[in-house]
Amino acid sequence: MKNIYVEEIVHTPIEQQQIEIVERKGIGHPDSLADGMAEAMSRALSKEYMKRLGTILHHNTDETQIVAGRSNPQFGGGEVIEPIYVLLVGRATKFFEGVYIPTDKIALKAAKDYIREHMHCLDVETDIVFDVRLGEGSTDLKDVFKRGKVPHANDTSFGIGYAPLSETERLVYNVEQRIYNEFRRKNPAVGEDVKVMGLREKDRITLTIACAFIDRYLNDIEEYDAIKQELTEWVKDIAGEYTEREVIVNVNTADDYERGCYYLTVTGTSAENGDDGSVGRGNRCNGLITPGRPMSMEATSGKNPINHVGKIYNLLANAIASDCVEKVEGIKEIYVRILSQIGKPINEPKALSIQIIPEKGYEVEKMEPGIREVAEEWLSDITKITEMVINGELNTF
Amino acid sequence: MKNIYVEEIVHTPIEQQQIEIVERKGIGHPDSLADGMAEAMSRALSKEYMKRLGTILHHNTDETQIVAGRSNPQFGGGEVIEPIYVLLVGRATKFFEGVYIPTDKIALKAAKDYIREHMHCLDVETDIVFDVRLGEGSTDLKDVFKRGKVPHANDTSFGIGYAPLSETERLVYNVEQRIYNEFRRKNPAVGEDVKVMGLREKDRITLTIACAFIDRYLNDIEEYDAIKQELTEWVKDIAGEYTEREVIVNVNTADDYERGCYYLTVTGTSAENGDDGSVGRGNRCNGLITPGRPMSMEATSGKNPINHVGKIYNLLANAIASDCVEKVEGIKEIYVRILSQIGKPINEPKALSIQIIPEKGYEVEKMEPGIREVAEEWLSDITKITEMVINGELNTF
Amino acid sequence: MKNIYVEEIVHTPIEQQQIEIVERKGIGHPDSLADGMAEAMSRALSKEYMKRLGTILHHNTDETQIVAGRSNPQFGGGEVIEPIYVLLVGRATKFFEGVYIPTDKIALKAAKDYIREHMHCLDVETDIVFDVRLGEGSTDLKDVFKRGKVPHANDTSFGIGYAPLSETERLVYNVEQRIYNEFRRKNPAVGEDVKVMGLREKDRITLTIACAFIDRYLNDIEEYDAIKQELTEWVKDIAGEYTEREVIVNVNTADDYERGCYYLTVTGTSAENGDDGSVGRGNRCNGLITPGRPMSMEATSGKNPINHVGKIYNLLANAIASDCVEKVEGIKEIYVRILSQIGKPINEPKALSIQIIPEKGYEVEKMEPGIREVAEEWLSDITKITEMVINGELNTF
Amino acid sequence: MKNIYVEEIVHTPIEQQQIEIVERKGIGHPDSLADGMAEAMSRALSKEYMKRLGTILHHNTDETQIVAGRSNPQFGGGEVIEPIYVLLVGRATKFFEGVYIPTDKIALKAAKDYIREHMHCLDVETDIVFDVRLGEGSTDLKDVFKRGKVPHANDTSFGIGYAPLSETERLVYNVEQRIYNEFRRKNPAVGEDVKVMGLREKDRITLTIACAFIDRYLNDIEEYDAIKQELTEWVKDIAGEYTEREVIVNVNTADDYERGCYYLTVTGTSAENGDDGSVGRGNRCNGLITPGRPMSMEATSGKNPINHVGKIYNLLANAIASDCVEKVEGIKEIYVRILSQIGKPINEPKALSIQIIPEKGYEVEKMEPGIREVAEEWLSDITKITEMVINGELNTF
Repeated sequence: MKNIYVEEIVHTPIEQQQIEIVERKGIGHPDSLADGMAEAMSRALSKEYMKRLGTILHHNTDETQIVAGRSNPQFGGGEVIEPIYVLLVGRATKFFEGVYIPTDKIALKAAKDYIREHMHCLDVETDIVFDVRLGEGSTDLKDVFKRGKVPHANDTSFGIGYAPLSETERLVYNVEQRIYNEFRRKNPAVGEDVKVMGLREKDRITLTIACAFIDRYLNDIEEYDAIKQELTEWVKDIAGEYTEREVIVNVNTADDYERGCYYLTVTGTSAENGDDGSVGRGNRCNGLITPGRPMSMEATSGKNPINHVGKIYNLLANAIASDCVEKVEGIKEIYVRILSQIGKPINEPKALSIQIIPEKGYEVEKMEPGIREVAEEWLSDITKITEMVINGELNTF
Repeated sequence: MKNIYVEEIVHTPIEQQQIEIVERKGIGHPDSLADGMAEAMSRALSKEYMKRLGTILHHNTDETQIVAGRSNPQFGGGEVIEPIYVLLVGRATKFFEGVYIPTDKIALKAAKDYIREHMHCLDVETDIVFDVRLGEGSTDLKDVFKRGKVPHANDTSFGIGYAPLSETERLVYNVEQRIYNEFRRKNPAVGEDVKVMGLREKDRITLTIACAFIDRYLNDIEEYDAIKQELTEWVKDIAGEYTEREVIVNVNTADDYERGCYYLTVTGTSAENGDDGSVGRGNRCNGLITPGRPMSMEATSGKNPINHVGKIYNLLANAIASDCVEKVEGIKEIYVRILSQIGKPINEPKALSIQIIPEKGYEVEKMEPGIREVAEEWLSDITKITEMVINGELNTF
Repeated sequence: MKNIYVEEIVHTPIEQQQIEIVERKGIGHPDSLADGMAEAMSRALSKEYMKRLGTILHHNTDETQIVAGRSNPQFGGGEVIEPIYVLLVGRATKFFEGVYIPTDKIALKAAKDYIREHMHCLDVETDIVFDVRLGEGSTDLKDVFKRGKVPHANDTSFGIGYAPLSETERLVYNVEQRIYNEFRRKNPAVGEDVKVMGLREKDRITLTIACAFIDRYLNDIEEYDAIKQELTEWVKDIAGEYTEREVIVNVNTADDYERGCYYLTVTGTSAENGDDGSVGRGNRCNGLITPGRPMSMEATSGKNPINHVGKIYNLLANAIASDCVEKVEGIKEIYVRILSQIGKPINEPKALSIQIIPEKGYEVEKMEPGIREVAEEWLSDITKITEMVINGELNTF
Repeated sequence: MKNIYVEEIVHTPIEQQQIEIVERKGIGHPDSLADGMAEAMSRALSKEYMKRLGTILHHNTDETQIVAGRSNPQFGGGEVIEPIYVLLVGRATKFFEGVYIPTDKIALKAAKDYIREHMHCLDVETDIVFDVRLGEGSTDLKDVFKRGKVPHANDTSFGIGYAPLSETERLVYNVEQRIYNEFRRKNPAVGEDVKVMGLREKDRITLTIACAFIDRYLNDIEEYDAIKQELTEWVKDIAGEYTEREVIVNVNTADDYERGCYYLTVTGTSAENGDDGSVGRGNRCNGLITPGRPMSMEATSGKNPINHVGKIYNLLANAIASDCVEKVEGIKEIYVRILSQIGKPINEPKALSIQIIPEKGYEVEKMEPGIREVAEEWLSDITKITEMVINGELNTF
């Protein structure tokens, strides 16, 4: 395939740079909530289209907007004063070949279910007001969705991926995930809105964690402080599983008990009080924000998994990158960029650029055939990405 | 200042990489419209706060959401069938020391004025429905806005900048700007929604331009095609001012006249028919999307210019980078990253990392003092960024 | 009390007029749903204010707007295609003496609970999108709500009532109520949106009933028709309990089976498909629309029960009228009108006019003392109306 | 025509009753603004349908909801703090026989234009946020709108009218109209939100006028008071043109200068601060609220003028009543009620009841032929009502 470019790139490998900044917005962060609902809607619509019509129709639900509410957190249990407002935005096909698809209802249900499943103290009924504005898409794009053919790219756009994650990246990612999956389950006072900012200065990593605590489980500042300390220690402990570098952990650094400042919430997310959220403003599809790495601006969450290259190519680029690292020896760092051309089959990108920093002693030229093979295999089986997305096997944020 | 890190970084300079992808979403792109209104609101609020209270109060208007309308473009003049819906979202202080500030009104006016000034065929009265949801911010953040002190960072966040622009970057940026400022003024049939995607493959640059044409100025497909050809030639011409590389120009590649496909609009923006838009999803604050360069995910537009490091540090990082290139000899590429620490004065970042690829024959060590000087000067005069933002001297997208 | 006027009025008694028109919009009619939610919100707010502050604060939730959805009813079970949109509108005090009252949340919960309790096939989660816009009231009105005093009238307004109901009125009212409470319970295919229009032409009463049927309980037009016939017969039967006049019963007269016209719904209310609803546009507070009787335009539902004379005086006028009929002999018809004066205690109306048609052989002059007594007693104990409203003992539509 | 009933009715003529209550909500009252916009939208849609398709399509725009804003009026000029929110609600046909009709745009423009034309200090751009939710109607109703036939009734409903107006009714109506048309034009400090409540106790009429003043035209309380006194005297003067009874005029009775209470606004309507408004909650189609007269609950404003009997029959009933008074001698009072039957041509009502109180010496029997003639003529020429509505020759509130 002539559009695949494999080149050696020379740059200071990430681990050898003096400074590295990595961020992850946790599940309950307003931007992540927007991403999560957006993707849940797209998955639900995809499934319903399949069920009713045997094919997936045009839709993009990648524009959900969260307008923060107001709350009055109190030790022992405060309350939301003004509900969060969630506007579910996007496009969806509502009528096709004589069949109605109740897209708004499906979207509404998916978004509510998503919140219910992921937020243990956010009441879908009264803490949030949901509104839906799903318009019809433009007619031209509808044509793209024909059965049994490789879909054509919806736009001129690109996707980006790289592998492997750096130590700091793995650390940041896993700290948030494990707080959510492990620490929080034992400590219901820990909310889902956990932001982890990692700064590596040479061999010292500082993790700055903003963690929303939930008021009803805490009687006073002492209990708050106790869990905060426990969380700090716990993160220090697990950090050792990801790095041997020195790790400093700071939780809720803006706290000032004297002045009554602490990160207390009613619902576990800062969306309850002043923090708005949007799709595509948080984590990239590898779960991280990495200013030292190439990134795409495309919101992966909520886009249709059939022909929206802004979604598919981001996921594909990461899949190719990871796969290469696994299958081809000698890759220190690999960067994949894929550019689409509107109207062409998505397995025929305008350009697929692969840049490699080889491990010492390896030559890119020799690795190239193996790398091409991985890339071509993924291209020839590109609809696998679509399936994995619909089945929820690929994260988008 | 101990937090400033200057290091040499080794990587293949951008111009020597085989592949380079650069994108710019023009003024009339839905995401840019969202950015533009967001920033216009923040500027208007800042000015009004100054006027009424002599200081700028807490606000962030960085979450505007555009829900696309529906249109029925026709040669000779079609019409918008369903208006675009614009939800102006954010936070603003509405009452302070006995003074009311009509924030919603100010925001509404600023957004409408912005559209009027930048879009020549989009009727603010009937093509768009505007709604406003500006909540009050969280109380803690309000404290930050004290008069006569260096403001404290609102969050743990970072900004990114680099210099100079590559050839392709300058080309892409200027092509869009000049279509808007020059070609469009002579050709009212050219809309403001112009997206330029640049792909450099070694020494050949392909510019893929999606340009919305406006129906009322075109009687038929011949006229459409004529202007499209004219635009293509014109871009080829001006391209020579930015590069000596071969430049291929494609305009509206998805057009298919036989099937009645062409990029025709009523208003000059695709927001009229199916393309939603959000703040922070398009251009970075240097006006470009550059997946081969470090980028920040922070939306620069609409954030308050006083203490929101997500805005200030992005603008600052670019300012420092440009300034260094101007004042310090021997910089091939310079990358600046600034990490804040919440609650600390914004001129005391947690880390200010500067990475340099020197020109041949130059040593970073020798350049370091000059570079530090530039950085420190900007830090010591950081509120200059604020002023420039309010005066509209700094672009944010 | 000098402002009470009692006068004999001469007019053809309602039963002797040739034509009488009476209408009742049932529980599930869009206007009634709006009324029901409005009143539920006011009751819930009143209770919460009492609980938190020991007094009821200013609020009026009498402006709920229902925007109809779209549905696709099918025998055997169709679905709602676009949800109904409900905008809960009004005024409420959100902060008082240091205490926050989460008015939006309370309103939201009350409205949803109301629908759940009264509509057996309308899914609050996905068939309806709820939004809330409860503003703060004007400051002056807040002053009125002082503890331990007779509240002052919020406006210059009036209330109207009469007694007893005519035969046709009782018939229309009870037919709807008993379909809802009795027939529907045994026949789940009968929806809550039942409109009964009664026309009495001399001694023949025609009941025109529009009854929404629910698709999931009906397999085909035969089953639909069977229940329709059953309902028709059942209404004819019970009609005999209210009148000896001839009663003709027509159900869903617009049906035309040949052309596929029948009144089938998914949810039991026409709000699902094209019928909007508003507070105060349906039944007066005696449960009826009676163009042959004096009526007030004031929406009784949703207004605060403390000082909103548009609510209190309508309920009071009906209470006085009914009480007079019970306690004073010789009243054929009695009409009560009460006019407030803004800013004066509500038990000191500007005018309380009582008009009487006496039974043959009775003189109004002799009845006057008894009638005055009833009126004065109610005035002196006017806050009883407030209590009864809060306890749900008085219907408002 | 067998469905026309003419009967003599005996009741105390309105002028002889001791108490009479009459109200008129002026042009700028929130409920009237809702009515006015609703009707303006229907007129604009009707005209556009005619222009594009030669026929009027199904629509009803009779559900506009106004959610009050917040303002901070100040002598010399205050401001609106939070804009009024106007939700334009209803049904309209958006696509018909291959033609799109941009109903939302038409509605938006009509509503804005209406405000501009009728309110001299209410800024459509920034004092109001407009939103539109015009759904498609139910399919069945669309069938009704066939060209060149008498339309069929959309519902089982009724209309009411009477003539002539009583002295108090004429007084109340004209006082508001002349304040708006005459006094206000010379006194820009007088707003459009003028509510006139008339109470006649035997031969004394008390006019209680609530008149919104506009702050920018008044420097202090003295100027306010001066115009208030002038208005009071002016009303007393013109009252003599309508009645010889004693007339007491009270303007803004809730004012209490000591406590800083006066009816001051920024925009001339109380909708700016806490007073919501709805279609159909204010004046009946004769411009008045008359609890001593039969009234219909149907909102006349905004309904389609083709087949919505809730609109047409109200206007028709009033037209017949007025016409009878003009053409048939001896009518003291005449009451007209018209009941439709759904699906039947609107010129074949189920019942048209005419009740008459004859002047002394006249017999209803002898008047009957003339009255029938008037009624039948109107029925046979019923579409004249439609034309007059579209041309704006009939008021609806």
